[in-house]
Amino acid sequence: MKSPVAVVVLAAGAGTRMKSALPKVLHRLAGWPMVRHVLENVAGLEPTRIVGVVAPEAKDVAAAFGVHPTVVQRQQLGTGNATKAALPELRGHEGPVLVVYADAPLVTTVTLRKLVEACREQKAAVGVLGFTARDPSPYGRLIIRAGELEKIVESKDADEIERKIDFCNSGVMCLDGGLVDTLLNAIRNDNAKAEYYLTDVVAIARAAGHRAIAVEGDEAEFQGVNSRAELAAAERALQQRLRAAALEIGVTMTDPDTVWLCADTRLSPDVTIAPSVRFGPGVTVASNVEIRSFCDIEGAHIGQGAVIGPFARLRPGSDVAEDAHIGNFVELKATKMGRGAKANHLAYLGDSDIGAGSNIGAGTITVNYDGFGKHRTVIGADAFIGSNSSLVAPVRIGDGANVTAGSVITEDVPADALAFGRARQVTKGGRASPLRAKLKARAAEAKRGKDR
Amino acid sequence: MKSPVAVVVLAAGAGTRMKSALPKVLHRLAGWPMVRHVLENVAGLEPTRIVGVVAPEAKDVAAAFGVHPTVVQRQQLGTGNATKAALPELRGHEGPVLVVYADAPLVTTVTLRKLVEACREQKAAVGVLGFTARDPSPYGRLIIRAGELEKIVESKDADEIERKIDFCNSGVMCLDGGLVDTLLNAIRNDNAKAEYYLTDVVAIARAAGHRAIAVEGDEAEFQGVNSRAELAAAERALQQRLRAAALEIGVTMTDPDTVWLCADTRLSPDVTIAPSVRFGPGVTVASNVEIRSFCDIEGAHIGQGAVIGPFARLRPGSDVAEDAHIGNFVELKATKMGRGAKANHLAYLGDSDIGAGSNIGAGTITVNYDGFGKHRTVIGADAFIGSNSSLVAPVRIGDGANVTAGSVITEDVPADALAFGRARQVTKGGRASPLRAKLKARAAEAKRGKDR
Amino acid sequence: MKSPVAVVVLAAGAGTRMKSALPKVLHRLAGWPMVRHVLENVAGLEPTRIVGVVAPEAKDVAAAFGVHPTVVQRQQLGTGNATKAALPELRGHEGPVLVVYADAPLVTTVTLRKLVEACREQKAAVGVLGFTARDPSPYGRLIIRAGELEKIVESKDADEIERKIDFCNSGVMCLDGGLVDTLLNAIRNDNAKAEYYLTDVVAIARAAGHRAIAVEGDEAEFQGVNSRAELAAAERALQQRLRAAALEIGVTMTDPDTVWLCADTRLSPDVTIAPSVRFGPGVTVASNVEIRSFCDIEGAHIGQGAVIGPFARLRPGSDVAEDAHIGNFVELKATKMGRGAKANHLAYLGDSDIGAGSNIGAGTITVNYDGFGKHRTVIGADAFIGSNSSLVAPVRIGDGANVTAGSVITEDVPADALAFGRARQVTKGGRASPLRAKLKARAAEAKRGKDR
Repeated sequence: MKSPVAVVVLAAGAGTRMKSALPKVLHRLAGWPMVRHVLENVAGLEPTRIVGVVAPEAKDVAAAFGVHPTVVQRQQLGTGNATKAALPELRGHEGPVLVVYADAPLVTTVTLRKLVEACREQKAAVGVLGFTARDPSPYGRLIIRAGELEKIVESKDADEIERKIDFCNSGVMCLDGGLVDTLLNAIRNDNAKAEYYLTDVVAIARAAGHRAIAVEGDEAEFQGVNSRAELAAAERALQQRLRAAALEIGVTMTDPDTVWLCADTRLSPDVTIAPSVRFGPGVTVASNVEIRSFCDIEGAHIGQGAVIGPFARLRPGSDVAEDAHIGNFVELKATKMGRGAKANHLAYLGDSDIGAGSNIGAGTITVNYDGFGKHRTVIGADAFIGSNSSLVAPVRIGDGANVTAGSVITEDVPADALAFGRARQVTKGGRASPLRAKLKARAAEAKRGKDR
Repeated sequence: MKSPVAVVVLAAGAGTRMKSALPKVLHRLAGWPMVRHVLENVAGLEPTRIVGVVAPEAKDVAAAFGVHPTVVQRQQLGTGNATKAALPELRGHEGPVLVVYADAPLVTTVTLRKLVEACREQKAAVGVLGFTARDPSPYGRLIIRAGELEKIVESKDADEIERKIDFCNSGVMCLDGGLVDTLLNAIRNDNAKAEYYLTDVVAIARAAGHRAIAVEGDEAEFQGVNSRAELAAAERALQQRLRAAALEIGVTMTDPDTVWLCADTRLSPDVTIAPSVRFGPGVTVASNVEIRSFCDIEGAHIGQGAVIGPFARLRPGSDVAEDAHIGNFVELKATKMGRGAKANHLAYLGDSDIGAGSNIGAGTITVNYDGFGKHRTVIGADAFIGSNSSLVAPVRIGDGANVTAGSVITEDVPADALAFGRARQVTKGGRASPLRAKLKARAAEAKRGKDR
Repeated sequence: MKSPVAVVVLAAGAGTRMKSALPKVLHRLAGWPMVRHVLENVAGLEPTRIVGVVAPEAKDVAAAFGVHPTVVQRQQLGTGNATKAALPELRGHEGPVLVVYADAPLVTTVTLRKLVEACREQKAAVGVLGFTARDPSPYGRLIIRAGELEKIVESKDADEIERKIDFCNSGVMCLDGGLVDTLLNAIRNDNAKAEYYLTDVVAIARAAGHRAIAVEGDEAEFQGVNSRAELAAAERALQQRLRAAALEIGVTMTDPDTVWLCADTRLSPDVTIAPSVRFGPGVTVASNVEIRSFCDIEGAHIGQGAVIGPFARLRPGSDVAEDAHIGNFVELKATKMGRGAKANHLAYLGDSDIGAGSNIGAGTITVNYDGFGKHRTVIGADAFIGSNSSLVAPVRIGDGANVTAGSVITEDVPADALAFGRARQVTKGGRASPLRAKLKARAAEAKRGKDR
């Protein structure tokens, strides 16, 4: 049986280049705080422990680690110091200890596993993920000799020959659990910045007769996030992965570049998505659903064969059953649309339950809020709600009932009843032109007032 | 006079990588089923016959060929076998026979004509469209000797020298009509897959003393569609062509990458299109029209000088006359907007006819559907429809009539009449705070109920 | 003290490739007419004079120069001739004369300053901005000898050696103010096109013993605009600059490629902008504002902590105070939303003033237009406007007043009053099915009529 993995997630960086009041690792990517991506990526290794290292007073960051313990790095004294702060939480752990960065959300489980497996197979005390850099100049170089990692040379310390090496340090490291204590405690800070560098463990391990290795990954995975521009770049990279996965399972996207997915969006085969659709967190879409242009969908389930949009907004708690239609300028919130029900135009349906086969006319509004509380509207099956109606909740409309256009409904309507809540039409012949004359005069006078 | 062309369109592929219930060649690109693009591309050659080769029971695919005959390829036994299936429909045809693929929608008429013309001029029995591949490894190579096509070598059969050749086979072929029968019948299936390869006709023709040639086209045109990712790539390529053509005639697009056109979209000079506009099939736009952001337009004619959007939706049957305005959150369906008429905000106009110069207030809804049938609303010229009105169709509003805000109109309004369909205002002083107290108490109680 | 700069902006080009009724330099980029970008770019040099050279009868172009004088180039006789037309307006000017192009809006102040400074330092009579071209073939080449600009060779006149030079002429030039008259008057038109080329001043100056120099800039800055495709390319380049600047100050953009900014858009740190948002001219956004997807914002101020969208439209004169919410399908025009006020769904608020803390129900419409004039709606603090209400302006709603859902309000509502403007509900049991039967019959009959 393989020894279990422990993971240290370094999340104490200051992130000043973000120019934000929000801690860097809580900025969102594909709908999730950045650090959650890292937690998901390491989760694939089924670690027995995950330890977060956070800055003092970073309660929100600690909270983002959920059930996982966090430790505080008191001062920003380098990555070696940060990792060392996790040692109390690693006590008794025997297997590999993986050190990853909360601001590097693109490193995949596959790549991390490759590193851990290589360390196990080659019995390495230290393993480092490296990459071949297009432009190596900003990175530390990995010096390989006889298949082993001899050392890591910082860019500024590299000599002429080393500078030509393009195999670079990603920072991600795997340490032998039995040695992690010794290695980390041996790091010294006798350098220009008086910091403790995690990279020093390579030399330390080798000096003690242990093996160090490097494992290559793809440069694209190691892009960290230090600024809003890098945040946008990471978002783009994640979106490309999510879009590719959706296409792969049989989703049609006319223009994938303008479909914005979340990490947890669940789509199905033969879903078609028109250009310019945004998915927030918590969306599930069954097969054969058609999502038209300019939709904004969050916290919603959409059943098979439903048609959504264009210009539809589904807010959390929307549950659209099979073959239902949600049309343009329609908003749903905490609302269940029954099978085959339709709300095709200009409507707000909030805190409501619409029965199967019902038709919601254009301009219908569920008056769910009275300034203090939210109330529910319940509409039965096969009801017909006329256009421009206001349904003042709490209110119930029975099966097959008919609410006439323009009605304000304040009392329940029984099944099969016809409800009016509007005035009768009165038409006055020949009265439009005098009115026009009057309004015209008023406008002229107002204009004179302004000109004066 | 040139001998006429016949075209065989191979459309019997299984398309399993699409992971779709819809046959591959019926997936849409720029608003059309994929195969229709191929039919349009070959139409430029003015062929006297077009023959589709379809899979058994692919009725929808056969239907997509319209007036053109289709034949069924009983079993998937290779391209040679598929083309042979078309022979009965080619009987008596003398001129060139062009073989194209229904899943390769990007090959232009210009390129196809180049092949046919070269075959005619050089009296070739077989002509093949080739391309210089950036990465030739997946393709068959075209071996050229002394200006003739000596043979086509499959990638896996290529020797070391042949593998270095980057001139590749697109699959598109032109056969001499007088020889097509002989050539196709000579193809054998004595290969690993026991399939009949169309490419074999090169060797067959040359062995019989005929000439074979290759004509070069652009690699980009030969991208086939086998997956949703390739479908998206083909869409992008078509959109780029359509956008470039629109810019060329004098259309301004602030961000062409977010204007989605259809193959049949007709635009005019000095049309300006803001970012994020989708055109469905059947749209014609006259000059000096301004289309603002976030519009969805399908089956519509837009007259000179009209202003559309932002957030406007024009559905099929929309006819917007000169200088009319369709504003935000407005939907038109089967509706004619007269010259200079305006519907600037939040309205649904369906099955209606709006006279020149009329003003449709915000929130106006034509109640065109009663649950069973659709009815028309006819509004005369220079009418004024007040905000939040419901016009219950069938209904007619005369020239210059005025419908007051908030009215439900169920009966015709004569010209110049003033129509009311709303209640008088009643104001009750000092009654808002007791109501607030009551609602607040109700909310508090509901909350207590939940908390319990 | 440095001698002051004068600038000549050449804006007389015909722009026929634009295929537009609008003069080329008035086409808009990032919300501004193209020429305004050039005026802003040169403004950074604090010139004492700016002179526009325009075509005859190009009144709109002249107007775009604002306070700056323009001169007319009578005939299109080349850049030398155009620049010469500006001489009367340069009389008495001693310092450098910079010649720039109104259709080259991407040349930055930094680059222009580099040219002017180099001319000053090196006492050059003529300075030219050059660039290293990826494909030099269409451009004139800059021949450098001993650190000086020896000559400019037109592409078609270049010999074999010169053709290999990739240092090219951008057209932007700086002339010594004391020599400008002499240099320009010495240009002759003894060439194939009988035109006066500004580039001739290099040879003229050198022949008279003066120094000519070239200063290198980035090719990307010198892209001119001659077609709609180039207009779109320039827009893209400007947008990339504006987006990069916004990210730099701490704005989050999920997908910067679908955020369209204006040259004058003012954003703040910790503003978050979701995908697909368009900014028109005149927008200021305070910190911590959240702008959701699919918004269209123009001429608006948005206060700290406000939440906008999705699907919101803010038109000129919108002033959204701190913590206010503007939700989906809501339009604001010339309207002030007070602190913490909310209009979350389907509303049109025009020419209105909404007090702090007020809640505007879904479907509310301010009836601001009577067909002739616009009128104001004033709503106090903490008012509650029920859904689907129509507020017929001019009208005032007092502090804490409550307008019930579905009301048409035509008269002022005092503070704390409760206002109704709707009919009572009438419910008729068992009447929906007979109505259904009747409507069904009507629909069937209509269908029969059509089928006949």
